[in-house]
Amino acid sequence: MISDTIPENVVLLLSCADRAGLVSRISRFIYERDGNILDLDEHVDPVEKTFFIRVSWRYESASFSLSELEAAFRPLGTEFDASWQIRLSGRKTRTAIFVSRYDHCLQELLWRHSIGEFPVDIALIISNHPDLAPLAAHHGIPFHVFPVSRDNKDEMEQHELDLLENNAIDIIVLARYMQVLSSRFVDRYPARIINIHHSFLPAFVGSSPYRQAYERGVKIIGATSHYVTEELDQGPIIEQDIMRVSHKDTLDDLVRKGRDLERLVLAKALRLHSEHRILVNGRKTVVFE
Amino acid sequence: MISDTIPENVVLLLSCADRAGLVSRISRFIYERDGNILDLDEHVDPVEKTFFIRVSWRYESASFSLSELEAAFRPLGTEFDASWQIRLSGRKTRTAIFVSRYDHCLQELLWRHSIGEFPVDIALIISNHPDLAPLAAHHGIPFHVFPVSRDNKDEMEQHELDLLENNAIDIIVLARYMQVLSSRFVDRYPARIINIHHSFLPAFVGSSPYRQAYERGVKIIGATSHYVTEELDQGPIIEQDIMRVSHKDTLDDLVRKGRDLERLVLAKALRLHSEHRILVNGRKTVVFE
Amino acid sequence: MISDTIPENVVLLLSCADRAGLVSRISRFIYERDGNILDLDEHVDPVEKTFFIRVSWRYESASFSLSELEAAFRPLGTEFDASWQIRLSGRKTRTAIFVSRYDHCLQELLWRHSIGEFPVDIALIISNHPDLAPLAAHHGIPFHVFPVSRDNKDEMEQHELDLLENNAIDIIVLARYMQVLSSRFVDRYPARIINIHHSFLPAFVGSSPYRQAYERGVKIIGATSHYVTEELDQGPIIEQDIMRVSHKDTLDDLVRKGRDLERLVLAKALRLHSEHRILVNGRKTVVFE
Amino acid sequence: MISDTIPENVVLLLSCADRAGLVSRISRFIYERDGNILDLDEHVDPVEKTFFIRVSWRYESASFSLSELEAAFRPLGTEFDASWQIRLSGRKTRTAIFVSRYDHCLQELLWRHSIGEFPVDIALIISNHPDLAPLAAHHGIPFHVFPVSRDNKDEMEQHELDLLENNAIDIIVLARYMQVLSSRFVDRYPARIINIHHSFLPAFVGSSPYRQAYERGVKIIGATSHYVTEELDQGPIIEQDIMRVSHKDTLDDLVRKGRDLERLVLAKALRLHSEHRILVNGRKTVVFE
Repeated sequence: MISDTIPENVVLLLSCADRAGLVSRISRFIYERDGNILDLDEHVDPVEKTFFIRVSWRYESASFSLSELEAAFRPLGTEFDASWQIRLSGRKTRTAIFVSRYDHCLQELLWRHSIGEFPVDIALIISNHPDLAPLAAHHGIPFHVFPVSRDNKDEMEQHELDLLENNAIDIIVLARYMQVLSSRFVDRYPARIINIHHSFLPAFVGSSPYRQAYERGVKIIGATSHYVTEELDQGPIIEQDIMRVSHKDTLDDLVRKGRDLERLVLAKALRLHSEHRILVNGRKTVVFE
Repeated sequence: MISDTIPENVVLLLSCADRAGLVSRISRFIYERDGNILDLDEHVDPVEKTFFIRVSWRYESASFSLSELEAAFRPLGTEFDASWQIRLSGRKTRTAIFVSRYDHCLQELLWRHSIGEFPVDIALIISNHPDLAPLAAHHGIPFHVFPVSRDNKDEMEQHELDLLENNAIDIIVLARYMQVLSSRFVDRYPARIINIHHSFLPAFVGSSPYRQAYERGVKIIGATSHYVTEELDQGPIIEQDIMRVSHKDTLDDLVRKGRDLERLVLAKALRLHSEHRILVNGRKTVVFE
Repeated sequence: MISDTIPENVVLLLSCADRAGLVSRISRFIYERDGNILDLDEHVDPVEKTFFIRVSWRYESASFSLSELEAAFRPLGTEFDASWQIRLSGRKTRTAIFVSRYDHCLQELLWRHSIGEFPVDIALIISNHPDLAPLAAHHGIPFHVFPVSRDNKDEMEQHELDLLENNAIDIIVLARYMQVLSSRFVDRYPARIINIHHSFLPAFVGSSPYRQAYERGVKIIGATSHYVTEELDQGPIIEQDIMRVSHKDTLDDLVRKGRDLERLVLAKALRLHSEHRILVNGRKTVVFE
Repeated sequence: MISDTIPENVVLLLSCADRAGLVSRISRFIYERDGNILDLDEHVDPVEKTFFIRVSWRYESASFSLSELEAAFRPLGTEFDASWQIRLSGRKTRTAIFVSRYDHCLQELLWRHSIGEFPVDIALIISNHPDLAPLAAHHGIPFHVFPVSRDNKDEMEQHELDLLENNAIDIIVLARYMQVLSSRFVDRYPARIINIHHSFLPAFVGSSPYRQAYERGVKIIGATSHYVTEELDQGPIIEQDIMRVSHKDTLDDLVRKGRDLERLVLAKALRLHSEHRILVNGRKTVVFE
């Protein structure tokens, strides 16, 4: 049961080919079961004629379970040939963080986690280096080291995948993880791996984006959070932000300023994902803020 | 008739006390008349328990007029005890601009008008000075001078009100108009007079905000567009923006930088209003971007 | 004579290999001739070990001409093996604007020119289309049409170069000019042709940057003003700015939002140049704001 | 001795009434002692006719101590009737942080301290509550609790002042410290107490600025870091920044978004201070970035 004693908030994310009556049908489905809509955001891609919706609603008291609610909605989803999911707002997203040696993104996520800022449950941390184990320990989060190398990559990734599955992980966050994941790995978590790239994509893909930015003499640097796909730095962009720089800034200054961008942009992307605000639209995202 | 040959887009803006089923009822109303929703944005004020909605939809071919559509919707509006309006997206908002001597905001609005950037029909310009008459003439817009003084204010305002009424003006834009309108005037156009104030309200109300900002030594200046109410600079805020300044900036620099803010912020506020994206919520606005 | 009756402001821009004593020698040169420094900004590139300085100073009454001042400074410049120029702040930069059909950047520059916002004298406008002639006429600026085509490019450019030379043009501004200038042309005006590119360079070089941005699904768009070099969109960046976009923005919306960026960024670049605030450092700029 | 073996960087901050020759005299002083200027930034307040300068220079090898250098400069300082200080860039600023119960600003400063991001030595933490003692302990920083109340304020402050003096504290940072310091306390540390106020000053002075912002319906919130003076929230502003909000943001959302502003703005202010980049100019600051 969702709950028969306390109120419960529910979120539907849905996309399908556009047609008349979608909002009417969906909102009637909610109304008929005594749900009260809190927030509804809808978008139609005018080029692809695709319909995207996020609705959150509230039951003061519901006599059915989440799976019963899903079962009740299934005929509509099938009729619309839609991709959809229904989530409980109160249930935290099971998250695994991958890191290497830089601590700033991990620090940021752990701090937000510790004050309960987003509905994220950091279940474990995976790293190819032992350096950040003490930080994980301070926060009481299991820390697993997989020293990935060219030779053992397949094997290490298999261990990682097993660990993720055993822990029922929903979302993987690459918090400045300096290894490229294999296609096999990425395919297992479509639109469920979030990366932070330290440039304003599509500028400066690949390695050393701050050095590239410094050498090009840009007046603004950026950071980009995106879902990971097979092609490096080409996945759907979730969030970007920028900061002004000038000729006075050395390469070290860019790195320092960029750290603040990276951790805020990555944290925002994880918040948006965990609040079920993102739908993927081909190479792009629809983000209902 | 809305149109029986070409497609027509319609916008509904509505607010009322929140209750279950509002979205369902409204979207069914649209669906039953063969409208296809293009964009729906909904908000519930969690403190006041007030419901706000903007829906735009499209008829491929409609056999009824706008007033017939309004008549059909009226029972719902009455049942919800709602404040509402239905507008045709294709119909331009009849606009009067009030100016004094500064030309930058007027220039900006006339330029956007000339390239058709927003659904605004600038019907006339009113000023208390003749200075900007040549600019109006260049754009072919009627320019009326009312040399308001302390002694003749009532009389001048009456002439202005007559002129506005005779021209079926929907919205008045104060584009750096240096006179305070009387309560009597303001009451005639509730939430239909847009002002630009050259500060980041509520900082620096009243006169000489740039001087106040300069003397306070702020590191950021701003501009605020708001609906005019009886209380000076206290009306609901529509849009704000800011710009960085430093100790190097003289008072003249603040004025220069501020001009760019003022004209962009005012233009955006007028665009939002003319696209029917703003609902007033007490002292605040709900802006569906 | 600079002036023997009214005060006169002078600006020195200088770059050379770094060594001890440069500021001391330069400031003594100014002090010995009764100049009072108003503003001094200095930068040493820590990688290239290059010294850059902008000093502005004021003579309450000077008994020498600008060329006498230059002659007096020459030994220092030679000793430092420096690239340098001395300019009178009160003398406006002779400017030619190149346009095609879009009017927004031209409008912006003409408006700022008309209110005397920057020390720019717009001497003439060159276009490959006649469309914007009326706008030029309204502002009383000579407008020359050169219908450049693949076949006549050399000849047309020669006419343009003659016109520029005959009018003693200091700086050329490409205000959304849709032709690529030849290397021969560019070589004649090194670091004296300013372009506006409608993307956040180096992202989206070449044509249709808004379409590229739309298809990539970026969350922020940008505009970049840079000096033109032989390589397309690769010249030293002067100024950049950005604006947020979302999945709701159509390609047309990006174009509309981008217009505001383009005209403000280009106007700022021209202001910085005309106030003698820019030094080129290889592929980069040093901008003393 | 500054150092006779390794290079040493020195910073001079100086302000005095403007007059001709100041830069020349100061740069000659540096040059004559074999210093090489790295960075020089100068500003003349055009209204007050006050001169401000920050110069940093480097000795490859210096045969004198800092106090010998100060002694050598003293005659110049006296002649100019200047307020001045000479600092070694390599020497960290002894810092005390005051906190109450919110941890976000303290976390931020401790993290930056731990990675050596700014030349700050956090010597101790003072609080009126014991809550954040574990965080201080994790970073190995002494944590002192002074449970200030109306009745014991004088006495508690005297203990705090003693502690600060015994620890040779240069700068006090109020990291969301919820007590108002007495005038007697503030007078002991002029321009040496940095506060973070969670609004865009001068808007929303006093308590509950987020609530005030929420009720006013602003579209942008801010944070302001300033030196503390006797008058509450009226001291010279060092740094401000802002973030967009909308009608969708609840009061809790403003608090959450504001936290990110507060910690970044406060950290930047402390960095600027510890790098000796700030001069106070009456109610304002000159910040040489």
